[in-house]
Amino acid sequence: MIYISRKVDFCASHRLHSPALTDAENVALYGKCNSANGHGHNYVLEVTVCGSVGENTGMVMDLKALKDLLDQEIVDRVDHKNLNVDVDFMQGVIPTAENMVIKFWGYLENRLPENCRLFEVRLWETDNNVAFYRGE
Amino acid sequence: MIYISRKVDFCASHRLHSPALTDAENVALYGKCNSANGHGHNYVLEVTVCGSVGENTGMVMDLKALKDLLDQEIVDRVDHKNLNVDVDFMQGVIPTAENMVIKFWGYLENRLPENCRLFEVRLWETDNNVAFYRGE
Amino acid sequence: MIYISRKVDFCASHRLHSPALTDAENVALYGKCNSANGHGHNYVLEVTVCGSVGENTGMVMDLKALKDLLDQEIVDRVDHKNLNVDVDFMQGVIPTAENMVIKFWGYLENRLPENCRLFEVRLWETDNNVAFYRGE
Amino acid sequence: MIYISRKVDFCASHRLHSPALTDAENVALYGKCNSANGHGHNYVLEVTVCGSVGENTGMVMDLKALKDLLDQEIVDRVDHKNLNVDVDFMQGVIPTAENMVIKFWGYLENRLPENCRLFEVRLWETDNNVAFYRGE
Amino acid sequence: MIYISRKVDFCASHRLHSPALTDAENVALYGKCNSANGHGHNYVLEVTVCGSVGENTGMVMDLKALKDLLDQEIVDRVDHKNLNVDVDFMQGVIPTAENMVIKFWGYLENRLPENCRLFEVRLWETDNNVAFYRGE
Amino acid sequence: MIYISRKVDFCASHRLHSPALTDAENVALYGKCNSANGHGHNYVLEVTVCGSVGENTGMVMDLKALKDLLDQEIVDRVDHKNLNVDVDFMQGVIPTAENMVIKFWGYLENRLPENCRLFEVRLWETDNNVAFYRGE
Repeated sequence: MIYISRKVDFCASHRLHSPALTDAENVALYGKCNSANGHGHNYVLEVTVCGSVGENTGMVMDLKALKDLLDQEIVDRVDHKNLNVDVDFMQGVIPTAENMVIKFWGYLENRLPENCRLFEVRLWETDNNVAFYRGE
Repeated sequence: MIYISRKVDFCASHRLHSPALTDAENVALYGKCNSANGHGHNYVLEVTVCGSVGENTGMVMDLKALKDLLDQEIVDRVDHKNLNVDVDFMQGVIPTAENMVIKFWGYLENRLPENCRLFEVRLWETDNNVAFYRGE
Repeated sequence: MIYISRKVDFCASHRLHSPALTDAENVALYGKCNSANGHGHNYVLEVTVCGSVGENTGMVMDLKALKDLLDQEIVDRVDHKNLNVDVDFMQGVIPTAENMVIKFWGYLENRLPENCRLFEVRLWETDNNVAFYRGE
Repeated sequence: MIYISRKVDFCASHRLHSPALTDAENVALYGKCNSANGHGHNYVLEVTVCGSVGENTGMVMDLKALKDLLDQEIVDRVDHKNLNVDVDFMQGVIPTAENMVIKFWGYLENRLPENCRLFEVRLWETDNNVAFYRGE
Repeated sequence: MIYISRKVDFCASHRLHSPALTDAENVALYGKCNSANGHGHNYVLEVTVCGSVGENTGMVMDLKALKDLLDQEIVDRVDHKNLNVDVDFMQGVIPTAENMVIKFWGYLENRLPENCRLFEVRLWETDNNVAFYRGE
Repeated sequence: MIYISRKVDFCASHRLHSPALTDAENVALYGKCNSANGHGHNYVLEVTVCGSVGENTGMVMDLKALKDLLDQEIVDRVDHKNLNVDVDFMQGVIPTAENMVIKFWGYLENRLPENCRLFEVRLWETDNNVAFYRGE
């Protein structure tokens, strides 16, 4: 079994605010990320797929096809968008990196070739902050 | 003469939209950056100061003092903010990197020690896109 | 289960020298890292925590709280220090990255919120050299 | 058990072309990577070893020895080479990153000290494209 | 006057070999870069343009238009190519980074909007090796 | 005229302490960098040379020769050393990046081929802190 990963990036804005909490609790919990008019990030998304290597192709999966899938399923939906307002699948969801990788997993899990399975969806908000999900 | 630079970063959202242009012209000019509800970036700001090296200190300027100046004059005003809405000095200004470095220059130019002068203000919106100003 | 990671960095000096070995054996084993008066690194520490996502918060754990924990438990103890001389918990321990991640694990393991557990402590001495520990 | 990794890099050229496919199928599958006269990459190889920490050394394995092993077994064979033409162990193998990590694994697996085992061989073709193998 | 830069990348192979030198002189001069069947790089190209900021646009030049220009004039001609064999404008030219930035300058110099001029063409062969040209 | 740059790195420790100042003034000025037993950095040195391109070589200067010069003149003198104690040319000099680039310039200025001159010596102490000197 071989693992392959592809990175893509997108720029988006968001605000962290939980409807289950009071305004004061939101400020206490999210700090600057609760700022009323939002802020943004250059997100980096890395998706890892694992599977057997095709004898005739030398590839687990065409990385160009994986990039096209990521663009179509994820990047086109979130790039240069406001995650709170513009993105259908984030409605009613607090746009933390944790929630985003779960949602992204759902869009990718069943879209891979038969010899492959999705291993990890990893999302950097900044160089220092990352969340990842392995379907566990 | 020696040059020293300090990098800081901040996260902000913005929308590029010119009131001098029609909506269609804005879309044609700014593309995705004109998206109605904004998007965002992890901005990286690098400020370069030049001057003579102090004989007793071995420094042009204390880089910690330069960082504190950048935090006070710039980062505290823009970090986790919406540049179009929240930032006083960007009101009436299209929040392009070009306009931002000019504004930032104005906040820094006269705040340096006597043996120094401001050489460059450089702002990355993404790893691939940068604007810089040298006061020329 | 979702994983989140936070990176922090610190600058420290050290010398690799084993009291169980002769001087000649130390030179043979550690090479330049045995240099008598020490050398140093910009260390990068990445700590990964895993757990369930809080329904009301959208977070496994507040990454700001994780950063504060890393600063308090690790960075404040080692930043701008000589690891051989200044750091209590490294006394009697050869300050290799391997030994450091084990020690760091001990300071973090029981300091996490109830829904979380420590997954990995990873330490880069340079961009090319890294050690990590998963409590196995 | 502690894990340590060492990165090395090399520059090589290659062409992706499968003898089991027609020319048209090769173009369809590999796109620009099938370009007749080849292209190239700055490859980055990261090899991870795991094992117990030596009591007298504080190390799983000397990272300098690991680098020397990587240079001798891998880098000297592929650096500044044409992978299709110049590299013995890639003859009859499509030089994808997937196939390369499997071949590299074979050269490293039995060359480690007794207290260690090979955990992962990871190869970046570009910053965005990576393959890795864990011997599974 | 404001400066803006845009980075793009491409993958190519090349061989350094001077027809004015003997084979032995070529080996002595270029070392591994003279390897008979070529090798390759992930090149990174950064082009800097300077000019006045448009009052109605807040931009020196649309960075998207600059990217499109770089793709059309440079990347489409060299990406996934063998620089010695496949690239018309490199025929009879030793494909060093020095010669490449001079050639690239020629393709870009007269293609900019009226308010702009080309300031610098910078080409990284690796993270450690770079050449740049300012038209001086 | 073409510019070429080469990066090298080294690991060293240092302590910032000025004999012209009292202990309290040293703490006030240098903060953590005055820590009694020193700390360290992964320094990155980038040296830029400019000159004409040799017609028969396509090069301003062989970058391998430049690397060898940097290793011989700089890296071998400072790598894995304590800058305050071990390095002859830093005796009596506060080991700030500012002072280091001036010293490094002196070792390189007259060691270049005839068609070249030294343009810039740039030294990163960390990713965020840099000093550079252009012989002005």
